[in-house]
Amino acid sequence: MAKLLRSPLAPSALPILPPVTGVKLAAGQAGIRYQNRTDLLLVELAKGTAVAGVFTRSKAPSAPVDWCRQHVADGKARALVVNSGNANAFTGKKGAIAAQKSAMAAANIYNCPASEVFLASTGVIGEPLDVEKIERALPVLAKTLNSDRWEEAASAIMTTDTFPKAATRTVAVGAEKVTINGIAKGSGMIAPDMATMLAFMFTDAKIAAPLLQQMLQQSNAKSFNATTVDGDTSTSDTALMFATGLGPEITVANKGVFVKALDEVMIELAQLVVKDGEGAQKFIEVVVKGAESDQAAHRIGLSIANSPLVKTAIAGEDANWGRIVMAVGKSGEKVDRDLLSVAIGGVVIAKDGERVESYDEAPVAAHMKTRDIVIEVDIGLGKGRAVIWTCDLTHGYIDINADYRS
Amino acid sequence: MAKLLRSPLAPSALPILPPVTGVKLAAGQAGIRYQNRTDLLLVELAKGTAVAGVFTRSKAPSAPVDWCRQHVADGKARALVVNSGNANAFTGKKGAIAAQKSAMAAANIYNCPASEVFLASTGVIGEPLDVEKIERALPVLAKTLNSDRWEEAASAIMTTDTFPKAATRTVAVGAEKVTINGIAKGSGMIAPDMATMLAFMFTDAKIAAPLLQQMLQQSNAKSFNATTVDGDTSTSDTALMFATGLGPEITVANKGVFVKALDEVMIELAQLVVKDGEGAQKFIEVVVKGAESDQAAHRIGLSIANSPLVKTAIAGEDANWGRIVMAVGKSGEKVDRDLLSVAIGGVVIAKDGERVESYDEAPVAAHMKTRDIVIEVDIGLGKGRAVIWTCDLTHGYIDINADYRS
Repeated sequence: MAKLLRSPLAPSALPILPPVTGVKLAAGQAGIRYQNRTDLLLVELAKGTAVAGVFTRSKAPSAPVDWCRQHVADGKARALVVNSGNANAFTGKKGAIAAQKSAMAAANIYNCPASEVFLASTGVIGEPLDVEKIERALPVLAKTLNSDRWEEAASAIMTTDTFPKAATRTVAVGAEKVTINGIAKGSGMIAPDMATMLAFMFTDAKIAAPLLQQMLQQSNAKSFNATTVDGDTSTSDTALMFATGLGPEITVANKGVFVKALDEVMIELAQLVVKDGEGAQKFIEVVVKGAESDQAAHRIGLSIANSPLVKTAIAGEDANWGRIVMAVGKSGEKVDRDLLSVAIGGVVIAKDGERVESYDEAPVAAHMKTRDIVIEVDIGLGKGRAVIWTCDLTHGYIDINADYRS
Repeated sequence: MAKLLRSPLAPSALPILPPVTGVKLAAGQAGIRYQNRTDLLLVELAKGTAVAGVFTRSKAPSAPVDWCRQHVADGKARALVVNSGNANAFTGKKGAIAAQKSAMAAANIYNCPASEVFLASTGVIGEPLDVEKIERALPVLAKTLNSDRWEEAASAIMTTDTFPKAATRTVAVGAEKVTINGIAKGSGMIAPDMATMLAFMFTDAKIAAPLLQQMLQQSNAKSFNATTVDGDTSTSDTALMFATGLGPEITVANKGVFVKALDEVMIELAQLVVKDGEGAQKFIEVVVKGAESDQAAHRIGLSIANSPLVKTAIAGEDANWGRIVMAVGKSGEKVDRDLLSVAIGGVVIAKDGERVESYDEAPVAAHMKTRDIVIEVDIGLGKGRAVIWTCDLTHGYIDINADYRS
């Protein structure tokens, strides 16, 4: 397929990620599918690293998702291996064996149980993964590990992504500092139902695995699970978080500042995934308030954010608020049409179930021409609130997806 | 917007619909929105006509849907008024008054209660309907009523439709004959959750309203509710069925042949709506079997049929069965990945959770180049079965919907 242009919503540059004590990275070319680009990431984690993970709720998960789900409960990690180009999904017993062999290849390097090696694969579904390429590449990669390879790491895991995605925060914990670095990939098949395609967060903090798991789940709900590109939930969604334990300890008592930083890193990564949504020309924030519950608000927000008619209207820079009403109506959540209000770009268009008398389309039309579109819906029933991020639906999405595999 | 080309999936000609005793039709130009085309349909129904209806489950239904829902339980109809160009949806109290005034204008002609006049409106959402145009046009239209105006009727209710849609069956009931005629419209915002955009069926049979309602619901479940274009459920979905009672009587005892004919008429209409799906280039039949229940099979089928990644792959003539697996996995229904089989165009591609060893893509690639695509998924768990019809997702859909309102 033709080379994809960098998304117009991409940030001007990747942030510079500082080292995370206990984390070393290496990216290389295993030749799994792509020519002339990296497709394999190896991350070495210090002994004693705690791990937490959230995964796709797809009933047809990939072999690496099965593998991680099986081992994450032990809470221990020594390495992470990620390949792009092949998702190792719907590959039957061969796929499960390939996952195990990948893990063993890394375990041999670190002389650890295979269960401490975490895996993710992304790319084509249903084609056998040639694991020998990974087995051959890993020992070579291990010789190039370095604590500064964040950009290379973020690039090696891309598929239809047009830019690498990373975020970082460093916060004070008492007299010490803690860093959280994160990288993610994802562009299409994005409707995370537990996590997004692939996201990996690393910190030098010392955090017990159960607390790490709880924090990951909570931040995930506010970040990746609040995004959608096309409503298609991947077989491979995986978000893993690693805490090497070489920095200060985070406990329930002092976790506040860390949780806030983790929220920020994960929301930044999630928004970057949306900003690289296949064919995206506009970034859309959908704010729903006044719903019966936060969950109801979340579902209404997703109904708007997944509506092809809403997304194509925004692509056409058309403030077609009737389609927003349609999407609210089809959400299945409790709605009283005659209490509903809709605003776009801060301008109230409809209130109490009909268009406001004095509605002036000019400022809304001007807002529609910008890159960042804000839709606010007030259900008028309760206190439930949610924010969802998505992108528009353009010819670019069709171009990419009518031609991805061939 | 640019004139839409006739869908490549359109039938070569509209069938010729015979008269239905007790039904007269007239179509005219009320100038509601469109220039130089008809936009108003009046149907006169003989005294004693029974009516049944199913409507959108949207929580933000249009004013005409509210009106019909309120009056259909009485089971009596004397007239039907349908306009295109404006949906009279999300128009508040003004919309409810406009609906009532439309009904009264027809009731004045027939000297009947307004509650015996049924209404449907389709077009832009959220703009006030200028009901005076309808009030002025109806008395004029009433002078041109005729039992042969089926094509004009089917054309007057179109919006982004590229061809009028009609179907007919005549069956023997004892020594007599009964006719069922149906017309429908719909092209986008098609994900019926009770009925589709607009469909109207007419028969000269004598059928008690409760039985008519039951038959309509059952046929609707197999026809309109088994279709989707874009997963966007309309605010205006309405299917009404009228039985004038001037032909032979249908009862529970002799309904078999009638029900079969009604199924056929409604399935034909529902498929025509899909074949006129916005931008459609291919008609897709999704057959799901082996699910836990028929309902589970239905939901799995819709998950496949609504997946933008499946639909764009088919647009690109790519037998990307991995995306079918993804859509099965995200459906939320019970699935065992390792029992799953997928066939396209009758060729089994994947079985028991992985690609079959001997898979030859050539015949599948040839099938993908045809207009009629058949996807079969066997869940391998139970006896649940469903068939869903949809179309592909193409640049045409984006063209139409990024530019509809302006």
